Amino acid sequence: MIRKILTDARLVTCAPGDAGYDARTGCIAIEDGRIVAIGAEPQGFADAERVDLAGRIVTPALIDCHTHIVFGGDRAVEFEMRLNGASYEEIARAGGGILSSVTATRAASEDDLVASALPRLDALLAEGVGTVEIKSGYGLTVDDELKMLRAARKLGQHRPVRIVTTWLAAHAVPPEYKGRDEAYLDEIVIPGLRAAHAAGLVDAVDGFCENIAFSATQMARVFDAASELGLPVKLHAEQLSHQGGASLVASRGGLSADHVEYADAADAAAMAAAGTVAVLLPGAFYTLRETQLPPVDAFRDAGCAMALATDCNPGTAPMTSLLLAMNMGATLFRMTPQECLRGVTANAAQALGLRDTGVLAPGMRADLAVWDIGHPAELSYRIGFNPLHQRYLEGEPC
Amino acid sequence: MIRKILTDARLVTCAPGDAGYDARTGCIAIEDGRIVAIGAEPQGFADAERVDLAGRIVTPALIDCHTHIVFGGDRAVEFEMRLNGASYEEIARAGGGILSSVTATRAASEDDLVASALPRLDALLAEGVGTVEIKSGYGLTVDDELKMLRAARKLGQHRPVRIVTTWLAAHAVPPEYKGRDEAYLDEIVIPGLRAAHAAGLVDAVDGFCENIAFSATQMARVFDAASELGLPVKLHAEQLSHQGGASLVASRGGLSADHVEYADAADAAAMAAAGTVAVLLPGAFYTLRETQLPPVDAFRDAGCAMALATDCNPGTAPMTSLLLAMNMGATLFRMTPQECLRGVTANAAQALGLRDTGVLAPGMRADLAVWDIGHPAELSYRIGFNPLHQRYLEGEPC
Ligand SMILES: [Zn+2]
Ligand SMILES: [Zn+2]
Repeated sequence: MIRKILTDARLVTCAPGDAGYDARTGCIAIEDGRIVAIGAEPQGFADAERVDLAGRIVTPALIDCHTHIVFGGDRAVEFEMRLNGASYEEIARAGGGILSSVTATRAASEDDLVASALPRLDALLAEGVGTVEIKSGYGLTVDDELKMLRAARKLGQHRPVRIVTTWLAAHAVPPEYKGRDEAYLDEIVIPGLRAAHAAGLVDAVDGFCENIAFSATQMARVFDAASELGLPVKLHAEQLSHQGGASLVASRGGLSADHVEYADAADAAAMAAAGTVAVLLPGAFYTLRETQLPPVDAFRDAGCAMALATDCNPGTAPMTSLLLAMNMGATLFRMTPQECLRGVTANAAQALGLRDTGVLAPGMRADLAVWDIGHPAELSYRIGFNPLHQRYLEGEPC
Repeated sequence: MIRKILTDARLVTCAPGDAGYDARTGCIAIEDGRIVAIGAEPQGFADAERVDLAGRIVTPALIDCHTHIVFGGDRAVEFEMRLNGASYEEIARAGGGILSSVTATRAASEDDLVASALPRLDALLAEGVGTVEIKSGYGLTVDDELKMLRAARKLGQHRPVRIVTTWLAAHAVPPEYKGRDEAYLDEIVIPGLRAAHAAGLVDAVDGFCENIAFSATQMARVFDAASELGLPVKLHAEQLSHQGGASLVASRGGLSADHVEYADAADAAAMAAAGTVAVLLPGAFYTLRETQLPPVDAFRDAGCAMALATDCNPGTAPMTSLLLAMNMGATLFRMTPQECLRGVTANAAQALGLRDTGVLAPGMRADLAVWDIGHPAELSYRIGFNPLHQRYLEGEPC
């Protein structure tokens, strides 16, 4: 049994209520990678390894609960074309848009995908992230979607991080199925999901519910397949218009509805009742220069949990800083720093269905972030600054 | 004579015109910290130290031409109060606003100011910044303003970086001069400037020209004192309203007018004619959730050079990423990636009156940034990602 004790910490536990945000001085006792006590030093740790944190603030390790961090290529040249005045048609003719990421992802080997994702993953980990959700969705064939998820799992072997995978074949209709959405669902999305599940590659099922992608009725069919397999569901919902995706995912007891700029009070109430988290993605809002703010007050009033994530993806959020997502949540969405911190810890864990991380409490994994800050509000206040002192994953500094 | 040659570089020189943005493979020959040749390898370097850059992109080291990086305290709790719904009056009563930074800066020793600024400076340098402008402006007494500039100079002894200092006592009227602006100028701003100049602490003179700070007429008096001392001028101008600051600074042949959201076409023409740079500060625009965009088209049409900077300060832009300022320049202000890169290299050098940096050319300082990127547009495209491979200052890796 490996015992370790971190002393003179200022603990921000992220447990429910204001007390979870107040920094209280104490210690964290760890046994075999799990927290066994916080606050006063328990008995039996006299001979344990001791680490003096010198009054630093400790939070749960951060959780990025919505990313597309595995993909081929990048879209910098398309970004530049657009700023030079190119129209969407010109960009499409030049091979741009999401299909350029699909083409590059299909052309990439599994090892290529791992290698290109590693620097992005490292940027997240350097800011105290301990858990990262990664979606498929740029392969759009069974083999290429499986390849993306194998790459995602492999990232967890290359770095000390917990990876949670999501099947997102219902991200876009590939060119070879143009105008045949239903066939794409029947021939790729649903059989591919079964294959990926059989291979142990899927932790949850997602889709893009939008008038430019899949309808709520179509997504319901995908969710039926997920239910048969016992997999939880989530959805890119109400990002650009109100399509009924948030109420659909809530009706299935889903993990989260993501983006949700166009969600309304009824959606918020349904999500709160179902325990479905509102995952807000300010990086995409910022990049797309959107003006429709997510209904933060409605989520608050309904008691719907809010999370924040990077949405790291090559098109609408080439972003690899969860701390910046916190700042954007505060600055753009007017979330409080307490809501922002909870949104990347406890509520992000809820959005992934994880019950053993995101809070500092006995029994939880000792996934920790130790910060050189004086107050937890600094994590949201600063822009482009990383005050991480040390990250711990299952009790190990890393 | 120390000779060094960097080979197999892809050189983005930032010299005028599109050619300064095209990556061309070649080498950089360095002698005693200066570039002596770029492109083909010159004679006489056969025995020089050789560094193979393996096809990486090299730009001039970046230049952050507008910061308030030296200050006491932080304003995270005020940020949190505001997001929790506190009014400006409540924040002021709690000691918040710029005066809280003044109080903390006055209470800090010179060493305190150096110590608190170092992590912020390190964040900039880690992104390839080689030159940083630092303003006074939170002391608002002669002694405290001098203390700030001594701290700024001292930062340049602690780290390999070139520091350029700016006298900004005309930042705000301190409480002890409330309602007596003219007396503050006569008793503190102007005599303090002379004292700071005599101590060798000032490279340029700045002010905050706004209806909540100083008028153009008042700033003209400060600029007269600067001219007597042979110091160049610049101005925080047209940020929240049109006050005539941009035309004032242009009429003095000033280095830059900064923020300039409310500048108009006539201002742009006057600035272009005077060689006055428009320094755009998207971090403050973002933090304040402003909607008035700077007239980028007017600056382009007039041929007025545009620069980008962090504006790092505790109140309106607690930001320490110049790469993020580039992304914001593109995303929020619709500058092209080429304009963004020029805005943190050649045009930023012009904004500081520096003729020996900001461009890769023979005779210039060998201040370089070597990047792990495939195309210079990536520097603006990515959000919260640092692809720096190596920074060089006067030919030395650091
Ligand atoms: Zn997404
Ligand atoms: Zn400023």
